[in-house]
This record gives sequence, C-alpha cells and structure tokens, in this order.
Amino acid sequence: MKHKTIDDIALEAGVSKATVSRVISHPEIVSQRTQERVRAVMDKYSYTPSLLAQGLAGSPTKTIGVIIDELSNFFFIEIAEGIDRILSPSGYSMLLSSSRWIEEREIQLVRSLISNRVQGVLIAPISENSSAIQLLKEAGIPFVVINSIPKDPSISFVCCDNHEGGRIAAQYLNTYPSEQTIVITGFAHQSIEHRLEGFFNTIDTPDSIIRYSQIKTQEEGYNLAPELIKRNQIDRKKTTLFITNDNVAIGIINRLVEEGIQIPEQVSILGYDNIRISELCRIPLTTINQSITQTGELAAQSLLKLLKKQDSVYHHLIHPSLIQRESTVHIPQ
Amino acid sequence: MKHKTIDDIALEAGVSKATVSRVISHPEIVSQRTQERVRAVMDKYSYTPSLLAQGLAGSPTKTIGVIIDELSNFFFIEIAEGIDRILSPSGYSMLLSSSRWIEEREIQLVRSLISNRVQGVLIAPISENSSAIQLLKEAGIPFVVINSIPKDPSISFVCCDNHEGGRIAAQYLNTYPSEQTIVITGFAHQSIEHRLEGFFNTIDTPDSIIRYSQIKTQEEGYNLAPELIKRNQIDRKKTTLFITNDNVAIGIINRLVEEGIQIPEQVSILGYDNIRISELCRIPLTTINQSITQTGELAAQSLLKLLKKQDSVYHHLIHPSLIQRESTVHIPQ
Repeated sequence: MKHKTIDDIALEAGVSKATVSRVISHPEIVSQRTQERVRAVMDKYSYTPSLLAQGLAGSPTKTIGVIIDELSNFFFIEIAEGIDRILSPSGYSMLLSSSRWIEEREIQLVRSLISNRVQGVLIAPISENSSAIQLLKEAGIPFVVINSIPKDPSISFVCCDNHEGGRIAAQYLNTYPSEQTIVITGFAHQSIEHRLEGFFNTIDTPDSIIRYSQIKTQEEGYNLAPELIKRNQIDRKKTTLFITNDNVAIGIINRLVEEGIQIPEQVSILGYDNIRISELCRIPLTTINQSITQTGELAAQSLLKLLKKQDSVYHHLIHPSLIQRESTVHIPQ
Repeated sequence: MKHKTIDDIALEAGVSKATVSRVISHPEIVSQRTQERVRAVMDKYSYTPSLLAQGLAGSPTKTIGVIIDELSNFFFIEIAEGIDRILSPSGYSMLLSSSRWIEEREIQLVRSLISNRVQGVLIAPISENSSAIQLLKEAGIPFVVINSIPKDPSISFVCCDNHEGGRIAAQYLNTYPSEQTIVITGFAHQSIEHRLEGFFNTIDTPDSIIRYSQIKTQEEGYNLAPELIKRNQIDRKKTTLFITNDNVAIGIINRLVEEGIQIPEQVSILGYDNIRISELCRIPLTTINQSITQTGELAAQSLLKLLKKQDSVYHHLIHPSLIQRESTVHIPQ
C-alpha cells in the first residue's frame, strides 16, 4: 500500500488540508464531527504526518515569562538580550511582554503568565511593592525581580546600587566647573529615587540645583532643550546637566547640537545607564555604567538556580561606575 | 469562623506555604499524596486564595510565537516593537526568540511553538525556503513571514522591496562624486541578495566596484575600517561606501571618526535599513528607509486577520526611500 499523504487524507475525509493539520495540532478549534471523520480516515491508513510528527514528538519548550517596562527603551531591550543569552542555550524561551508602566497591565500580564504555566518569571516591576510581586509569591512560581529592591527580603533580585550611582555622579560634579547644575528625571521609580537620594546627600550645594521631572523619553528630552535655553539660559551660563536616563540625555544632546550649543564647552552632560548607544551617539555620553546586559544575565542565572532549588534566595547588588566620554570635560579620576 | 489564610492551610496540612501554592497553580509538580492532603484541608475550610484566585479565573493569554534572527540587532528589535504595538492591545503576548541565523535552531524553535500551542507565528526566516516555513504550513498554524519573500505564493508575507532599495541606492551613487565605490555586505540572506541585484543592475560602473562580504556586526564593521584604509587607501582616494546594513555602517563610522577621517568630505557613507540609531549616531547616517516598525505592525495586523479568516493570503511589499543625512554630501533629489 502506497504511503498516504495529507492530501489523500483530506480528499477522502472531504475536508481541506488545513483542516487535517488542525485536527492534528489544534483539535480544540475543529468541530467534534469533523475531528471524528478525519481521525477515522487517518486511523484507517495509519497516517503519520511527516515533519509535523517529528515536531510533536519534541517536548514543549520550557518557557520563562519576562515582564519589562518598555520595549522601545534600549535599557530594557539590553536586559532582555542578557536574559536571552542565558535562557536560550539552556533550552528556555522567553514569553516577553511590557507593562508600559501601567500597574493594571502589569498584574494582568502576571496572571496570564500563571495561566500559561510558565516555569518561572523575571520581572522589572513598576514599583517595589507591586501587587504583581505579591501575586507571583502567592502562586509559588519561582521569580526574580530586576531593577528594583523588593521590601520583602525573601524575594530574589538583581539590581544596580542606585544610591551608589547617585553618589558617584555627585562626587564627579562636585569637582566640575559650572555656573549652574540642572537635574532632569523621568518616572517616579525606586531606581530613580535612590539615584537622587545618593546624589543630593553627596552634592556640595543641593539647594542651588534646578530640577525638572517627568521627562521620560528621547522625544521629551528633545523637546525640553529649548525650554532649558529660554528659562535657564544654558546658552549663556556654563551649565552641567545630570540626566538620570541615557535615552533622555540622547534626545537633549541631539537638540542642543541642532541649536548650535557647544558640548561640553558650554553645556556638559552626565547621563545614567550606559545603554549601548550612549557610546555611539552624536556626542559620546559620559554616564554611570550599570552593566545592563550582565544584569539580565545574572537575573536569568539566578532564576535557573531557583528552578532547581526553590527555597534559595539570591540578592545581587551590582556596583556602578563612572564612564567619561566626550559630553563632559575629562577630569582625571 | 475566621477566614483561613494560606499559612493556616500550610500549617494544618503540614507542608510549606510554597507547596500549598503549587497545589493550586502547578499541581503536576506536587506528589499525588501531598496534593490530596492539601486539598482536603482546603476543602474543609472552603479556602480560596485571594489574588491568585482572581488570576486563575482569567483566561490564558493568547500567545503568538515570534522568531527573529538576532536579539542584539536593532533592526529585529524594532520589528518586535512594531509587533508588540499591535498584539498587546489585542490581548496577545509574544513568545519571542531568536534563531541566531542557525537553521537547526530555527526549526527547533518552530517545533517548540507548535508544542506550546501558539495561536499564530510571525517569523523572519533565515532562508525563503526554510524547513521552518514548511513545518508551519504542514501544522496548519496561521503565520506570516517577515523580511523575506517566500517562493510559495500561498504564504503571507510583509517585506520591503529590496530590489527597489538597491536601485534607489545605485541611482543616488550614480550622481555622486567619488574616485572609488566600495560595497560592504553581511549575511547571505535573500534581502541582501535582492538589494545587490537591484544595485548592480542600476549602477553605471558595476565592474569597478570593490566588494567586501560577511561583515555582519557593528564590531566587524569597526574592525574592517583599518583594512579599508590600508588596502583601499580610503584616506587618500575620495571614497563612497555602500553598506547594506546600518548596524555595520555605524561601527565603520565610529572607527573612521577615531582615525580622524572626514565624513562626508573624504569618505561618504550610505547605509541601509534606517534603524532608529542611524539618526542618533555620531554622524547621522544617510540610508535607505525600510519602515521597520511599520513592517512589524503590518505583519502583526495581517496575522490577526489570518486568525479570523485562515484562507486569506496577505502580501505586503513596502516601498523604500532615500533619507539623506550628514554621512553624505547633500544632493538635491
């Protein structure tokens, strides 16, 4: 007897080829009657689909849920890249999604991951007390928090020491020649608050510092620049900007270059994060390095250990460091 | 009767809190005996876990498998971002993984997605005849190919018109003042082949063009620059580089800037892709725009339509365009 193909099965059962395929791979979307008719024909000829059969013989990929805050932010993409570097050689896939800084969405995503029976979760939570963390804990799913230090010490995390990063920034600016210093921040997130605490506890003249907040994206940085010129006369007073997010710093730099302002001679810029493009951008950015890809790698490694030994707890506080590039005048450290 | 907590259940059943959680969310990893003991206590008190119960009441997220070639390549990240913009408001999550240009890995990832019962797949295949595509077709899973034109016309795809992009590049360089032109390419992928076909069929002097291939990453671009100086004397002959990938172009630019070579006065550079950082990099890059994020969006939209009406086929060929920035001398178009 000639080996039957999927076309033969479809023909004899009076259905399309796609329907035969669905009976094999997604029977739940095929009506009971059709399923029975197709299966009867398949059984009659002991039909085994070729490539597909091999596929179904494989075990499902082990999946890890990964929740980041923004997919369009290089910081989080580099974290995801670090995670993938560790997970994928270990045979895990990432179920990657972004909360877009919306708390309701974050908890909804965690629920979905639980329902999808992921083996573990890596989450960069919106807040260190996020209900999403509580839910993961209650569900007994191994998880590691990234980019926050949870209040609950039984929760594993990988985070850069943001207090120390803020201190390093302030120590640098304490020796830096300027007529005015402006601090520009974005989201009200623990990581930013800690940077500011470290910074304002260390800077020599905290009261004279001008502050802008809620500047979150490259575009918002780009659009802020004219206001800095108009309101703070950064085109005339020697100014240093400490921007707690490289993405925003790059937006500001681009606009200042367009406006013909000399960097670093007139305006000096210190960023924070050391995302990959901070080295590649128009004026390579002086910034605080927080080893982003390694953060992702370490978080994934910790999670893989947790999967083997659920009672362990891993706390990793990564040390930041200053990287001087061309957006500031070089000061020997 | 006081409302029982998870601690009470654990205490009375003589197990840890985590075990109680696992009985609820992952019973398959708890022994039959323990499950029964815990369930008996839960039933006795009509115990309902709070947050978790709400989570389990939700339906599983619908998941879409997304296979890209590289997670560390901005091109593919922007595609993923476009996909996420469409999928996530529609209640879908991405199961994102990268083939890393390895064919075996690609087919393995597709098998895993099938086993994980994803609703649909978006794939940027390594080759237009990839077995992965064949497997998806046989499995009857709705899918859309990105960044390639499959030979089989029954397969949906979203791809930039790479022939046209190559022609646009050649037309631009035909009018461009240079003593020599060097073409630098990376992976042997259909998209690159089409660009080169369009380019060499249109360029006025195809035989005089110097070619480098297999330059795939920013680092490889960075490392190629000294060879271009040594072997092709680009520091002395007025040279135009056509680099079929912006990532590589940015690596080359960075090294040329370090070597003190004037761009565009001495060396002019034309990239391809218009990834987001091509606008932000040291010398903003003249490039061929292929609307990357929109490619991802359009692919996701097509897939969502396919999920509703599986017999449809969508073919989207996106028109590329030239974007002049500072890495070339401006020529009025």
